[in-house]
Formats: sequence, C-alpha cells, structure tokens
Amino acid sequence: MRLVTYRAHVNAAARLGAIVGDLVIDLQYLGAHAGQALPADILDFIDLGPHAVTSTTALLESYAGKWPLNSALPLVNVRLLAPIPKPRKNIFGIGLNYVEHVEESSRTLDTSKELPKQPVIFSKPPTTVIGPGDAIEHNEAITRQMDWEVELAVIMGSRAKRVGEGDALNYVFGYTVLNDISARDNRRAGQWIYSKGQDTYAPLGPVIVTADEIGDPHNLKLTLKVNGVEKQSSNTRHLLFNIPTLISDISAGITLEPGDIIATGTPAGVGAGRTPQEWLWPGDVVEAWVENIGTLRNPVVAVGNEPRTGKSQ
Amino acid sequence: MRLVTYRAHVNAAARLGAIVGDLVIDLQYLGAHAGQALPADILDFIDLGPHAVTSTTALLESYAGKWPLNSALPLVNVRLLAPIPKPRKNIFGIGLNYVEHVEESSRTLDTSKELPKQPVIFSKPPTTVIGPGDAIEHNEAITRQMDWEVELAVIMGSRAKRVGEGDALNYVFGYTVLNDISARDNRRAGQWIYSKGQDTYAPLGPVIVTADEIGDPHNLKLTLKVNGVEKQSSNTRHLLFNIPTLISDISAGITLEPGDIIATGTPAGVGAGRTPQEWLWPGDVVEAWVENIGTLRNPVVAVGNEPRTGKSQ
Repeated sequence: MRLVTYRAHVNAAARLGAIVGDLVIDLQYLGAHAGQALPADILDFIDLGPHAVTSTTALLESYAGKWPLNSALPLVNVRLLAPIPKPRKNIFGIGLNYVEHVEESSRTLDTSKELPKQPVIFSKPPTTVIGPGDAIEHNEAITRQMDWEVELAVIMGSRAKRVGEGDALNYVFGYTVLNDISARDNRRAGQWIYSKGQDTYAPLGPVIVTADEIGDPHNLKLTLKVNGVEKQSSNTRHLLFNIPTLISDISAGITLEPGDIIATGTPAGVGAGRTPQEWLWPGDVVEAWVENIGTLRNPVVAVGNEPRTGKSQ
Repeated sequence: MRLVTYRAHVNAAARLGAIVGDLVIDLQYLGAHAGQALPADILDFIDLGPHAVTSTTALLESYAGKWPLNSALPLVNVRLLAPIPKPRKNIFGIGLNYVEHVEESSRTLDTSKELPKQPVIFSKPPTTVIGPGDAIEHNEAITRQMDWEVELAVIMGSRAKRVGEGDALNYVFGYTVLNDISARDNRRAGQWIYSKGQDTYAPLGPVIVTADEIGDPHNLKLTLKVNGVEKQSSNTRHLLFNIPTLISDISAGITLEPGDIIATGTPAGVGAGRTPQEWLWPGDVVEAWVENIGTLRNPVVAVGNEPRTGKSQ
C-alpha cells in the first residue's frame, strides 16, 4: 500500500488514506462499509501490527473500482500532510552513512576523514516534521547556511529490542522520504540537534510505501533538486551501514517502537560540500525524490526572529 | 503542589496524585467529588494550563483533612512511577553547564577546555525514562563505563516559540530530578544520543514540584550518592546557562511544548572525572537529590545481550 495522511479540505481533520491510481481511499470509511474497524490515524494503524497491512491490502483489492460512497476522493483534490504528522518521539537520524558524503563532510565541516566504525546517531524532534508543500522556515537571524539532505526514511512496525540483523527487516512497517534540513552554522560542540532539530527541518512524505511493496530497500535511486537543478544523485545500495545493521545496532541499547522513524543518511552533493558552497534561501524550492516512493517538494520561506513577549498557549 | 504518578497496587493503572503530608491524594477522584473534571494523566493535567495548578491547589486546601472516600492513600502503600512516565518527545539534555564539570570533562572525555558559548544540547528518547526504585540496566557487552549525573529537570507548561529571557519562567510548569546516566564508552563521532539514550538511562522523579512552590530554581542544592557515598554536591546557582537562557535559546529555533523536559546539566563529580575513574556496576545503588524536590533512588542491575530472534510485538 501507499499510505497518506490527508485533509479533504482546509479545515477537515487529518485522516488516513491509501492511494489507488489517482484516488485517495479513506481507510476508516472503507473499513466501516466492510464491517472492519480501521483507524483514521497512521500511528494507530501501525499499532495494529503486520496483519493489518495484509488484510487492508486485500480489502482494497476486493473493492477496487467499486468504492463505497464517500470513501474515494481524487488525489488532486486533497491536501497531503506528512504521512506521520506527529511522531511519538524524536526521529533517529544517521550521519555520515554514504562513503562520498563522509569525504565531502570532512573537507568542509568538522567531521573525521575516517569512515565511522559504528552508526553516528542524532535526533530531530517531532516539531521538525512538515508535509509535502509545507514551508521550510528560513530565519536569517539564526542561520545563513541552510542545507539539504535527501534520505530514505524507515518506519518501524513492531517493538524492537536487541534484534539480530537477520531478523531486522521483519520489524519494518514501510518507507518514506525525509529531507534532513540542517543549519550548518548551528552545530554546537559537535552536537547536531540544534542544527538539524529546528521547526520545519524535517519535510516528510509524500507517502509511506509499505515494506511488502518497496522492492529491495537497498537498491533505490534517490535525488535532490534545488530550483529544478539536480544536486544529489545516488542509490541506497551505497549505504555504509544498511538497514538491518542500523536496526540491530540501535535496538541493542534503545528500544525501537512502532511508528519510530530512522532517517538512513544522505549521499554526496550537499550544499556544504560544493565549491563554492551553496545554501538554501527564501524563494528556493527543494525536491527530494526516492525511487518507488515519490517526490517531496517544499518551498523555503523567510520568517522573522522577533521574540514573542505575550504568553502563548 | 508536589505531583506524582502512582499505582495503588502492582496491576493498577498509573494515576495522577498530589502528595499532602504522608498521603497521596488522587486528583481525578478528588475532582469528581468536587464536580471538577481533573485528568488521571500528568500530561493531560499540564495541558489544562496554569489555571489548573491554582484551582487544584485551592481544591486540595479546601478538602485538607476531610478527604473523600477512596481519594487518599498512604504514600508508603503506593508505588511511585516516573512523574512523566512517557514523555511526548525526547528529553532535551544540556551538556557542560557547570563550570567545574566543563573542566573535569575536558581532562577525561573528548570535550573542549573552553566554556561553551551557547548551550550544548542533546536528547534522550522517552524509552530512557524509569521511575523511583526502577532498575538502571547495565549491559556489560555494551558498556563498562556507566556514569551518573544528577540534574535539575525543568518541565515546560506552555507552548514556547521565540520566548524572551524575561518571560521564560512563565512557561515552566514545574521541576523534578533527573539522573542523566551515560555509557562513556558509547559516544560516537561526538554524538551523545547512544551513550545517553539507552533504555533506563533517565531515572526521573520522585515528584514534580510546581513552579509556584519551588522557591528560587537557581538556588537549589543538589547531590548524588553511590552506595551512600557522596560523589556530587553543588547548587543550581552555578549553572553556566540559567533556565531562562536555556528556554529562550532552545525556543529560538525549536518549539517547546507542554510536558517537554529540559535536563539542565550536571555539576562536577561524575565518575569519568575522578582519579582513578569510577563506574557504576550491578549491585550499586544511586541516589540523586535536589533540594525541595527529593531523592531519586535507583539500583543498577545486570542485563544480558542475547539477540532476540523471535518477533516481538
């Protein structure tokens, strides 16, 4: 399945849907027609476990072309949100996970020339997440070195603690695209959460492709364009630590939970690594694409830095 | 108020209470008696906003000594959990925020001798949180350098984005104690999430003291003992970046939300900084104490490292 979180109109609630052709099928409404309770929230759906993917796929096939009243909407008429609009914890990010990116980072940032011996893990708070078309906020008072990073993101399906590599892919729910936006001038004593963790710094989407339909997650092309010009182009087969290794390694110490997101790292071609260096500025449009998943397109917009003095709720 | 999350018996649900003398008063049951809807979950209570603290404090005073049936339990008869058992996102940790700890870290870890110019921020996932008395898991296959760090933890009360320092304390709900457990041999390319983010590495509690009752949060003694021997002893007046500065700085880029936790950093006296170095081992008991809040006591226990091959749910 290709799962989305969508609004039917501007003020409508966020709901869970599956894309079939050029339609969005609302899973809760379809399930209700079939006497099958399905949730309206993606995290609740992931919590149902792997059998829900199988049974819902079968349900969609059995109704194909005969959609019940109100369960199908034209894709062009809905607003897609991030497929997980509000993760339950910080996103796990993996740094320096493509060989050529390790090289460009060591030239231009403060990282080592050596390939990392273990995955380099950092985090992005849930408040970083935005959906397709949403604005990446550029606050010039905070950064003048905003950079892009296209990444394959893994969505966990089951609780994973001390999982072996051979079994790790069984714990994956699906895959989506994440653009790991960074303010390169906001790294602090080496810690990356501030440079990568600001509001709107994790465009996510447009869809989650479930694990049964992704093909080989270690053979997916990925590219990133700024204003239509290609800046990054690689393939997930060049991952230094592959997905089973990442899951096994993290889960050795940290329990991974359903809905957790692991952003697997970015290939070469980031702005910091270019000569001369290039940064994102208001007015730019960034398109991150991963094969079999789709294009995640976001504009960069200027925001101000005025302290708010009133109490906000 | 001194707020706790408790279980009335082993299999009972986690509930929200306030400590009055040697009793735990269940806020939902008390509220029901008074015709006032109060939640059973601390995060729902924080979401009610600052007026809920005022009105609930008044409610407790009006009932003092005349507790309705089933609303009061002896404190010694309940099991206290972490006051926020499952935070909604990773805890924000602050590194190198006491001058003498910056010095000891630069001698024995890989950090700079210079005082940081801006707060050094890292994160601990919600899966790190355990309550009073819960076991800190020591996995010898992963670490042989487990260390302690007593810290004052700030609980946010209101959504905060670009908050000025003068206004920042108005956004605080309350305070508790956090023991920022670290596996010093698990830092990776400088990123701290793996060394500080493993399961059980954030003992939290025993109570949240609401902001109106803490006194001056910048004049609280704090100590840490291992097996009864004092290892750390300082005062929050020695914080390098004080609480308004931390809130203002983080919220300049990252929206802080109700229930978010900021661990403000630890003073000198950690195991890594001692001569010879000392580490925590199974059988040890750690007691972290902050004045006006209380003692957070946790045993260290051995766990194995066998990969689980079966599918866990």
